[in-house]
Amino acid sequence: MADVRVDFRSDTLTRPSPAMRAAMADAEVGDDVFDEDPTLHELQDHVAGLFGHEAALFAPSGTMANQIALQLAVPRGEELLCDAAAHVVTDEIGAAAAIGGVSTRTWPSAGADLDPSVVADMIRPDGFVAVPTRAIAVEQTHNRQGGAVIPLPTLQALRATATDAGVHLHCDGARIWHAHVADGVPLSTYGRLFDSLSVCLSKGLGAPVGSLIVGSAERIAAARKLRKRMGGGMRQAGILAAAGLYALRNNIPRLAEDHARARLLAEALAPSGVVDPQRIRTNIVPLDLTGAAVDGPAFAAAAREQGILVSVLGRRLVRLVTHLDQTDDGIAHAAKVLPTLLH
Amino acid sequence: MADVRVDFRSDTLTRPSPAMRAAMADAEVGDDVFDEDPTLHELQDHVAGLFGHEAALFAPSGTMANQIALQLAVPRGEELLCDAAAHVVTDEIGAAAAIGGVSTRTWPSAGADLDPSVVADMIRPDGFVAVPTRAIAVEQTHNRQGGAVIPLPTLQALRATATDAGVHLHCDGARIWHAHVADGVPLSTYGRLFDSLSVCLSKGLGAPVGSLIVGSAERIAAARKLRKRMGGGMRQAGILAAAGLYALRNNIPRLAEDHARARLLAEALAPSGVVDPQRIRTNIVPLDLTGAAVDGPAFAAAAREQGILVSVLGRRLVRLVTHLDQTDDGIAHAAKVLPTLLH
Amino acid sequence: MADVRVDFRSDTLTRPSPAMRAAMADAEVGDDVFDEDPTLHELQDHVAGLFGHEAALFAPSGTMANQIALQLAVPRGEELLCDAAAHVVTDEIGAAAAIGGVSTRTWPSAGADLDPSVVADMIRPDGFVAVPTRAIAVEQTHNRQGGAVIPLPTLQALRATATDAGVHLHCDGARIWHAHVADGVPLSTYGRLFDSLSVCLSKGLGAPVGSLIVGSAERIAAARKLRKRMGGGMRQAGILAAAGLYALRNNIPRLAEDHARARLLAEALAPSGVVDPQRIRTNIVPLDLTGAAVDGPAFAAAAREQGILVSVLGRRLVRLVTHLDQTDDGIAHAAKVLPTLLH
Amino acid sequence: MADVRVDFRSDTLTRPSPAMRAAMADAEVGDDVFDEDPTLHELQDHVAGLFGHEAALFAPSGTMANQIALQLAVPRGEELLCDAAAHVVTDEIGAAAAIGGVSTRTWPSAGADLDPSVVADMIRPDGFVAVPTRAIAVEQTHNRQGGAVIPLPTLQALRATATDAGVHLHCDGARIWHAHVADGVPLSTYGRLFDSLSVCLSKGLGAPVGSLIVGSAERIAAARKLRKRMGGGMRQAGILAAAGLYALRNNIPRLAEDHARARLLAEALAPSGVVDPQRIRTNIVPLDLTGAAVDGPAFAAAAREQGILVSVLGRRLVRLVTHLDQTDDGIAHAAKVLPTLLH
Repeated sequence: MADVRVDFRSDTLTRPSPAMRAAMADAEVGDDVFDEDPTLHELQDHVAGLFGHEAALFAPSGTMANQIALQLAVPRGEELLCDAAAHVVTDEIGAAAAIGGVSTRTWPSAGADLDPSVVADMIRPDGFVAVPTRAIAVEQTHNRQGGAVIPLPTLQALRATATDAGVHLHCDGARIWHAHVADGVPLSTYGRLFDSLSVCLSKGLGAPVGSLIVGSAERIAAARKLRKRMGGGMRQAGILAAAGLYALRNNIPRLAEDHARARLLAEALAPSGVVDPQRIRTNIVPLDLTGAAVDGPAFAAAAREQGILVSVLGRRLVRLVTHLDQTDDGIAHAAKVLPTLLH
Repeated sequence: MADVRVDFRSDTLTRPSPAMRAAMADAEVGDDVFDEDPTLHELQDHVAGLFGHEAALFAPSGTMANQIALQLAVPRGEELLCDAAAHVVTDEIGAAAAIGGVSTRTWPSAGADLDPSVVADMIRPDGFVAVPTRAIAVEQTHNRQGGAVIPLPTLQALRATATDAGVHLHCDGARIWHAHVADGVPLSTYGRLFDSLSVCLSKGLGAPVGSLIVGSAERIAAARKLRKRMGGGMRQAGILAAAGLYALRNNIPRLAEDHARARLLAEALAPSGVVDPQRIRTNIVPLDLTGAAVDGPAFAAAAREQGILVSVLGRRLVRLVTHLDQTDDGIAHAAKVLPTLLH
Repeated sequence: MADVRVDFRSDTLTRPSPAMRAAMADAEVGDDVFDEDPTLHELQDHVAGLFGHEAALFAPSGTMANQIALQLAVPRGEELLCDAAAHVVTDEIGAAAAIGGVSTRTWPSAGADLDPSVVADMIRPDGFVAVPTRAIAVEQTHNRQGGAVIPLPTLQALRATATDAGVHLHCDGARIWHAHVADGVPLSTYGRLFDSLSVCLSKGLGAPVGSLIVGSAERIAAARKLRKRMGGGMRQAGILAAAGLYALRNNIPRLAEDHARARLLAEALAPSGVVDPQRIRTNIVPLDLTGAAVDGPAFAAAAREQGILVSVLGRRLVRLVTHLDQTDDGIAHAAKVLPTLLH
Repeated sequence: MADVRVDFRSDTLTRPSPAMRAAMADAEVGDDVFDEDPTLHELQDHVAGLFGHEAALFAPSGTMANQIALQLAVPRGEELLCDAAAHVVTDEIGAAAAIGGVSTRTWPSAGADLDPSVVADMIRPDGFVAVPTRAIAVEQTHNRQGGAVIPLPTLQALRATATDAGVHLHCDGARIWHAHVADGVPLSTYGRLFDSLSVCLSKGLGAPVGSLIVGSAERIAAARKLRKRMGGGMRQAGILAAAGLYALRNNIPRLAEDHARARLLAEALAPSGVVDPQRIRTNIVPLDLTGAAVDGPAFAAAAREQGILVSVLGRRLVRLVTHLDQTDDGIAHAAKVLPTLLH
């Protein structure tokens, strides 16, 4: 195998920069289980402020942030509606059911074309003979829909539906920064739409560890207790919070560069019929190999020989993700080599 | 309110007949927690035999029968696929998630027109990054799809899909007797298609209490332990088993009469635009009041004034069920009165 | 093996008498999931009245009755205190933790000599750093303590402790009838001491199936929903309720006979050093074979050869239970034969 | 309130030293969810080696490390035996039951005087009628028993008992380093006794975040999956691992100083009758205020006025913990002031 020249497996792979490391080394810290870490307080207040919510809570992973929010929104044995390819039901090891006892029904996976009336029709109101719907989760951007950005009017329609039905609306906003950059929607506008959000520092933003749950002060107080039960109560986590603050203050606008690179890759691969570049709006490029000469594992192996790492999500489904640890050279190399491996 | 002349709320409402009561009064019994009840053994062997499986286990309800089968088929945090209106995810108080930790994804509800390829496309194979699919559940007949009978070729295609994918196929067969009568498919043919089934004695068959889980001897042995944990270990349950045996031996063919009555009701209501009689093949008549002058609760209240009881499943959704405790007079009364209440 | 002449394995083994069967055959019934079974209503009201509580709910087993009561009393992840040999933590397949998420701490098993201060010292009040104690469960009579009757003053002291601490007090009263008969304490006196009770119809009372949860109207309404999730919602369960009513009206005083027979057996076995007859006050005779020439399995096998069935609860622990399906002849046979098998 | 001069609330409060911060800033990192973080590998291999086990896994907290180990050792609904004051049942928000479905029975809390035969007598073997015992957990040192060190022969006797019974033996070794220093028992000797251990970097060792699960390679592979479900999968956690390695290489021997300071405090407080200095062998000093003039909250408030922070664990129970962020001056101040607040 060649040396790795470019790693597209995930934007979680980024390593902290020297400046971010310096911020960590200098962070003022305390014991967060006692709620005494000043840097964590600063991060939590900053994030709550970005989204116009009262409070936020740091968690060691996006999975824990989502799952705590869902456990708070949905009593055991009651119902969450989500996309059939949502991270919360696909990529979190079944935690919603296994730990939270949350019953899920799913709508056919949709990206930017999500039809809010499909969701509305699935809601089961309280008071009839059925498991009552308590929450709806959307994912912005939508990972398994190729980093799709759900349009603001769609989200506003979902908000209206949720309000009418008395149902909680949660946003898995692990990459909401990308939606903000792609569509120019202020984070506070997104924040107003949701009763709770999870947001992630260790994906495109480049921090090493951490996500946050965002919501009302009361909800976040309850989240602290659940976080401890889940084993997410850390001590001097201000070290990690310092990296998160650095990332939030420095790495959001540059996501536009990741988006441009993803589009460039998609355009290079489009002639092979595995991706429609028109649909690539953020930093994720899904390749549908259904009509290709190779399947996902074979394609990934061939790419690896050329120093290019990709994710295999299914027999015929591969994913490329752009992020801040890539270079123009690496992108150019991939754009040249990858199409040759499909035939 | 008038005296109740006909009760369409459910086929669970039937009361045991004098002959069935005599069978219960004479039943030889033992302690089933010690597995020593001879009448229960007879019932369990009889039902296993009907479906061509090795063994069966009595349970106090269809919910428990389904949930035990699902807990055995799906490890905690792994995945069940089912219809978005399936009883197992809609009508069992969220037990699959709340007790079994089973993660569910759902396909858009479909009755007789279920497309097996939709299900096949949802399966997530083991070995990729995702919650793995472990089981598929179908419901025959399909309660919330108006007692729809899924055609045998559709079930055979699902069986092939499940086998290819190494996934368990469960049938919620609470009313599989009705499918058998409507389509003339032998119960053993149905039995061969599924790795496990639940079947119910206390719906159209008229027994007072009980369902059974059907499967391999090994599966049923494991089911006994889960049944005890769920609180379903009963003692001299042979009393109830005697009623079940009576029902199985006497009440299956007569379901054709319930089906005819349901069709008769649907035809009477068709001019009001609330139901398509062509779709009524068993004993359930769903009324879609979307275009009617009254909503579900108002219609039910008006019917009650005329001595007719119906179920309200949603603001605009009402359900009528025919069963062996109804009379020709009651049906005729309903067929005459109900259409007048829709305008 | 000889024919079975006397079965001491459990008082759950009793079969309904002809009079009880006649009561079942004549029972007026309805659909209890719709809460419309008149005989069940009569039974539930009768049992609530016996204990001076507002309401009661029928369940298919003592396990389900206990577990529903505990789930209602203890939020997930909070604490129940109970005896280390309590049925709720020993004999219910771990349901309290596995289904209810109830955390348990146990006091060293004690029968009639239970020291209430031991329990009081274990309570962890809310507001300090620890899982808070929410409920205490006691078992009256205490199965694995040889049918021990906890004295009324002890229970009164526990009641005072629970009230002071704001903690729920539950009674697993599967055999509370035996305590009532042995100590002459009115059932209503017991009832007043507990926030919830479970009581059983299918042990010493001789009914085929069923237990009840007893408590406030609000608690019992919540119990109905949990019962459905557990799969305990049955339909025409009035058949079983009729047997329960018969048992309650006819079979309580005769428990004194079972107690006398248990004492007779204990006296026959006392010279072998396996039991102290002074401790046998109800219908359970535990035999401690620690010093005997045979272990539990060997003793049980030898007894079986003589037509006598016993339970083996541990390598050196055997249990005899007396009940209404035994005869003076059977008891005399056992009293003569069993001592000879210990040497 | 005076400025805080000495904080005895916990040894989790320590802040990373400049040298530890430098180690973090320089750490080579990768994405640990992809198992590609070299510093984490180094830490995990180092800790596995210390205890003579095959493998170890980093987790964000001791709670998560313990709970993953317990979930792997005890199937849902089966049994763990532990001390009634064990951290796993007292201080982890009920996670063992709430998430793992683990049923617990507890022995009366004991520190150095634990009698292994008490534990042996509680084991319920598989194959009889009872929830089977699958694991025993001990805590070394024992937090709520005043940092007690369980003697090696006691642990060896428990090991023999566990082996005879086929039961898993887990050590909550959050402060096993203190036992090692106090008793001079090699960590590898402790390691050999247990099937799994959890150990903590962020208590006396002074690292900011992290615990590890230690065990066989197969067990640790399974732990990785459970860790992800619990939300403990972090990305570039090598930042934290570097602090842990620094702590392990530099801060173990100095625990003797913390032990000496704890003894010094106990001796100063002994005349007030609240603690027996003979029992203080590590870094925890519990104060029993049963006979004191003030209760716990009042004592803590008075101490706070003097710049001394303590933990209140119960109405009459206070705890002091010594650690590497304290100074001789602070200890001397506390030794002088605290006794004056008890009268």
